[in-house]
Amino acid sequence: MIVVLKPQASKEEIEKIVLRLKNDGMDVQVNTGVECTVLGVLGDTVHYDSATLELNANVDKVMRVSEPFKKANRKFHPNDTVISVGNAKIGGNKIAVFAGPCSVESEEQIVSVAQDVKNAGASILRGGAFKPRTSPYSFQGMEFEGLELLMEAREKTGLPIISEIMSPKHVEIFDKEVDIIQVGARNMQNFDLLKELGKTKKPILLKRGLSSTIEEWLMSAEYIMAGGNENVMLCERGIRTFETYTRNTLDLSAIPAVKKLSHLPIIVDPSHATGLRWMVLPLAMSAVAAGADGIMIEVHNDPEHAKCDGAQSVTPSMFKEIMEKLSPVAKACGREI
Amino acid sequence: MIVVLKPQASKEEIEKIVLRLKNDGMDVQVNTGVECTVLGVLGDTVHYDSATLELNANVDKVMRVSEPFKKANRKFHPNDTVISVGNAKIGGNKIAVFAGPCSVESEEQIVSVAQDVKNAGASILRGGAFKPRTSPYSFQGMEFEGLELLMEAREKTGLPIISEIMSPKHVEIFDKEVDIIQVGARNMQNFDLLKELGKTKKPILLKRGLSSTIEEWLMSAEYIMAGGNENVMLCERGIRTFETYTRNTLDLSAIPAVKKLSHLPIIVDPSHATGLRWMVLPLAMSAVAAGADGIMIEVHNDPEHAKCDGAQSVTPSMFKEIMEKLSPVAKACGREI
Amino acid sequence: MIVVLKPQASKEEIEKIVLRLKNDGMDVQVNTGVECTVLGVLGDTVHYDSATLELNANVDKVMRVSEPFKKANRKFHPNDTVISVGNAKIGGNKIAVFAGPCSVESEEQIVSVAQDVKNAGASILRGGAFKPRTSPYSFQGMEFEGLELLMEAREKTGLPIISEIMSPKHVEIFDKEVDIIQVGARNMQNFDLLKELGKTKKPILLKRGLSSTIEEWLMSAEYIMAGGNENVMLCERGIRTFETYTRNTLDLSAIPAVKKLSHLPIIVDPSHATGLRWMVLPLAMSAVAAGADGIMIEVHNDPEHAKCDGAQSVTPSMFKEIMEKLSPVAKACGREI
Amino acid sequence: MIVVLKPQASKEEIEKIVLRLKNDGMDVQVNTGVECTVLGVLGDTVHYDSATLELNANVDKVMRVSEPFKKANRKFHPNDTVISVGNAKIGGNKIAVFAGPCSVESEEQIVSVAQDVKNAGASILRGGAFKPRTSPYSFQGMEFEGLELLMEAREKTGLPIISEIMSPKHVEIFDKEVDIIQVGARNMQNFDLLKELGKTKKPILLKRGLSSTIEEWLMSAEYIMAGGNENVMLCERGIRTFETYTRNTLDLSAIPAVKKLSHLPIIVDPSHATGLRWMVLPLAMSAVAAGADGIMIEVHNDPEHAKCDGAQSVTPSMFKEIMEKLSPVAKACGREI
Repeated sequence: MIVVLKPQASKEEIEKIVLRLKNDGMDVQVNTGVECTVLGVLGDTVHYDSATLELNANVDKVMRVSEPFKKANRKFHPNDTVISVGNAKIGGNKIAVFAGPCSVESEEQIVSVAQDVKNAGASILRGGAFKPRTSPYSFQGMEFEGLELLMEAREKTGLPIISEIMSPKHVEIFDKEVDIIQVGARNMQNFDLLKELGKTKKPILLKRGLSSTIEEWLMSAEYIMAGGNENVMLCERGIRTFETYTRNTLDLSAIPAVKKLSHLPIIVDPSHATGLRWMVLPLAMSAVAAGADGIMIEVHNDPEHAKCDGAQSVTPSMFKEIMEKLSPVAKACGREI
Repeated sequence: MIVVLKPQASKEEIEKIVLRLKNDGMDVQVNTGVECTVLGVLGDTVHYDSATLELNANVDKVMRVSEPFKKANRKFHPNDTVISVGNAKIGGNKIAVFAGPCSVESEEQIVSVAQDVKNAGASILRGGAFKPRTSPYSFQGMEFEGLELLMEAREKTGLPIISEIMSPKHVEIFDKEVDIIQVGARNMQNFDLLKELGKTKKPILLKRGLSSTIEEWLMSAEYIMAGGNENVMLCERGIRTFETYTRNTLDLSAIPAVKKLSHLPIIVDPSHATGLRWMVLPLAMSAVAAGADGIMIEVHNDPEHAKCDGAQSVTPSMFKEIMEKLSPVAKACGREI
Repeated sequence: MIVVLKPQASKEEIEKIVLRLKNDGMDVQVNTGVECTVLGVLGDTVHYDSATLELNANVDKVMRVSEPFKKANRKFHPNDTVISVGNAKIGGNKIAVFAGPCSVESEEQIVSVAQDVKNAGASILRGGAFKPRTSPYSFQGMEFEGLELLMEAREKTGLPIISEIMSPKHVEIFDKEVDIIQVGARNMQNFDLLKELGKTKKPILLKRGLSSTIEEWLMSAEYIMAGGNENVMLCERGIRTFETYTRNTLDLSAIPAVKKLSHLPIIVDPSHATGLRWMVLPLAMSAVAAGADGIMIEVHNDPEHAKCDGAQSVTPSMFKEIMEKLSPVAKACGREI
Repeated sequence: MIVVLKPQASKEEIEKIVLRLKNDGMDVQVNTGVECTVLGVLGDTVHYDSATLELNANVDKVMRVSEPFKKANRKFHPNDTVISVGNAKIGGNKIAVFAGPCSVESEEQIVSVAQDVKNAGASILRGGAFKPRTSPYSFQGMEFEGLELLMEAREKTGLPIISEIMSPKHVEIFDKEVDIIQVGARNMQNFDLLKELGKTKKPILLKRGLSSTIEEWLMSAEYIMAGGNENVMLCERGIRTFETYTRNTLDLSAIPAVKKLSHLPIIVDPSHATGLRWMVLPLAMSAVAAGADGIMIEVHNDPEHAKCDGAQSVTPSMFKEIMEKLSPVAKACGREI
């Protein structure tokens, strides 16, 4: 951490600041310049709340040099994290494919989609039981019944299941019944929920918030990890920008960025990012080429009558074609799918 | 709702769509053009999930004509909502002033700030007990102890109190102990929490999400209102943009927009919007002139040693000066403060 | 400027970097720490291209401490700049009002609007002759004929005129014929045009680009000033964000920011910022309360048949009402209008 | 175009609007509903300025159904445009590679880089002679001398050359001397420049503006095409968002979007988009997999001492490696590079 003091800071004031930092357990190097004094601060700056320093009338700027996250940081954990879920491994050489409908609607629907995506090569079945909807008047999901149907589809196909959690009240049941717990974009900074999930050992898929920076996203992963659960995978699903042609703007540069900053696996969800099913294929290919560890795709047996997000869902036969086209791209990048 | 069909849509396909809409309880007017057919759809479109229509291969565009919110809509509730909290009224001619520290830190601190802001003319005391922090390693608030100190400050000053809720688990205690429950920007679309708050009758202050449109914000108010609690006030606190000079970009055009679209009171928080305390005065004046029903200002007795957001906190004497300067602006706009 | 070196940087490498900086005319203070070395760099960093330093494999971060603009910087020019245009002064205690139609359409139109806005208290007549339109098929302005009609309206009313320049080819004629040359948002970084304008002595109104930071905006002012023309005023007209309710998002925090960073006058254009004429009054009041030195308002005698931007234009009688309501707000802020 | 009238619109008012539209050459279908009347407007809506309609007090909303661009529109030109430049073809099955330094700095530099990129498989040499720099104090390019050195490098290698134009004054010389004229992001809506370029027949590479929507970008292409020059290729180079880890956010969903909306070729520039040279490889691979027709990469023989944008430049040997890795990805997508 670099602390730039104001030109007018007196010797006494500087000493007070240095003393305060030392009392807080930091090492301080004072660099007295002609125009201003600069402090080099070393120590456990990850756990240090630097904002309080900026309040001092003699401080001009506080600039962090190291990242504020630790457990999610590749510096302290150089090897890629690989998370095992049933037979699937997320984060290794094989690209994981999460597929299934936006929301579970009936036994017939979820079982049929599960079989189709399994046959086409998907490794994990997704399905929403509790749905975060902008309008209170939209379909809110089948809730517990949806979870049960999802479990049934798992039994019939052997695919591990992932579903989105909406409330800390549900952590216990999700921990017991699903294989991966999804935290949606709107809850990325629902810190109460993150803390509860940190107490479990269940793999967590943490979606990036609509207006969250990569650093904030990793800080939310850190919340879960700091609680004791290091089984976190990240999911880029588009950020909010001025462009309205796509629902959100898929930020594929987040893949190499996350790979550099962190050891956690990163998944890409082109369905939610664009909201347009004809964009799923080119952007899934693009995500694989950029180095994604997994792809999440919405598949519905009857998108036109889907209760939620049908416009972005592909049919099972389209999904099969996507899988066929992803395979050579994965190989060209030295990976499998 | 206007449904534009694709040029190639056959008569049979059009009839199917019309039938579906009618079965869903809508009135449909078919407008057969030379190039394409346009359907005018009337009925309870607020409760209708139009996204499903877009999946139909014969539908080109679905355009909503009316707003998707109802209880928050000025059309159905032309008069301004005025919410009474203790002696304060929010939404009337008098501009309410919410003041206090970012977080409650000690009895001495909160009682002293409470007395100072009361003397300077504040109507409501704010203070955080549970704090949403980006980092798990930052101070997370005094929690229940903080709530109790806040209650003590209320007892000593008579000021009603507002504090932020972080979890649905705390709805009961907040409902019992605080006068206004604040929902923070990061929880604006924590729908589980909104539903729980809809079951109370407690006034709710709903902050705008960092990347939420005005419509999404009103839809979140609608969640609370649809549950039965119509005591909702909105709070603009800056949106996330590319500009980094200020922490967020205060969107004051949201004031006339909300006033036109809704009957709910709107408060402005220049402290969080800018993150810079020297901007609080000009932007508070600006907010009053734009028609805000209230102003929320962070006040701390010792900002340099504040445990949270000190850089944006004003001292009690600065707050007094702000109040003195707001008064003539309010009068110039035909209001009081 | 602070240069943080990488932990592995060898003594020799550090010496090379220091030497390079010294050769470039800088003073360098070396701060050797336990973990890394930090260089404090002093000198004419405004004119120094720090990006080249970041390429060095031993450099971790380069952090600027001082602003990259000099002539526009309040540090080196503490007093407010006041620009005289005819009888009007821009930047002093009196708030300047720029009013007139988006585009000049006929002699009758521009003369009639000019007389109306003059009577209501406007100080400067605006009118577009060359129009920057998104579509090549939209009305592109009356061009030179429009300029002549504007000059005629000046003759009849005595109001100084401002008009937007679109091409460096027109600098000579604009310099000769108009009183203030406007650079539109889309041309804020048309550096070729800025350089040409720097060669004149004509007052320039520089609109903020749709996605320009405050710093970039001041750097564009610096382009004009570095060329020798210090008569620059800035105009905030909304930035592009995700919100679509208003055409752009008016960033009123730019007013106190510019006032702190620079000595140049700042004008606010609520008409272009919002695109909605019913928002002009509250946001003009808001801008005045935030400390704007001027307001620019689109006024058209027949907005419904305007050839351009009618939706945001107020009528002369609405303009009169706006002026009447701005006056007490200006007074409440210790200013006149 | 759909025009939704307000519920209170009288029969006479509606007739007036219909008459006005018919006078403007439109076909109008009146759809009289119970709540409101909707007009379906057909005809040359591309050339129609619908904004004027919104001013009418009886009009609620005007919604465009068709795109406002025509010559750039795939609807009217279903086949991909292929642009020939020397031996290179841009827009066909072979992916074009534009490579070279940000700015031309010396004969030695540009000739050596040109030979290296040619040997590695580049099809076009890029090099800036006139540089758009945020600061007037930064290196502004070698200008005409730079152009001449670029021509020399072409002579020595046979590679066609592309360079950025900054001023309409230079159209004649660029038209004569370079093979492709680049319009930079900051000039995407410099309509005066676009019009001048529309008068030539020279291939134009039009970069997307930092905050331009895909539609606005295509409208800028339309400006050039409407002038008579249909040799336009588009270049995605990142948009401005709240994320600061990368310089801009590369929007790869723009590739399938442009492919659907237009027949023009689309190039991707990962160097400028990210500003980080270690991101060039993964994002170039990603762009190819998303369907880009070309890739633009900054290559410098000595990035550490580059006069401009060195941090994003790769060395010739890194470029060679990139080309080797792009080849199998292109093949996996059924293309060549």
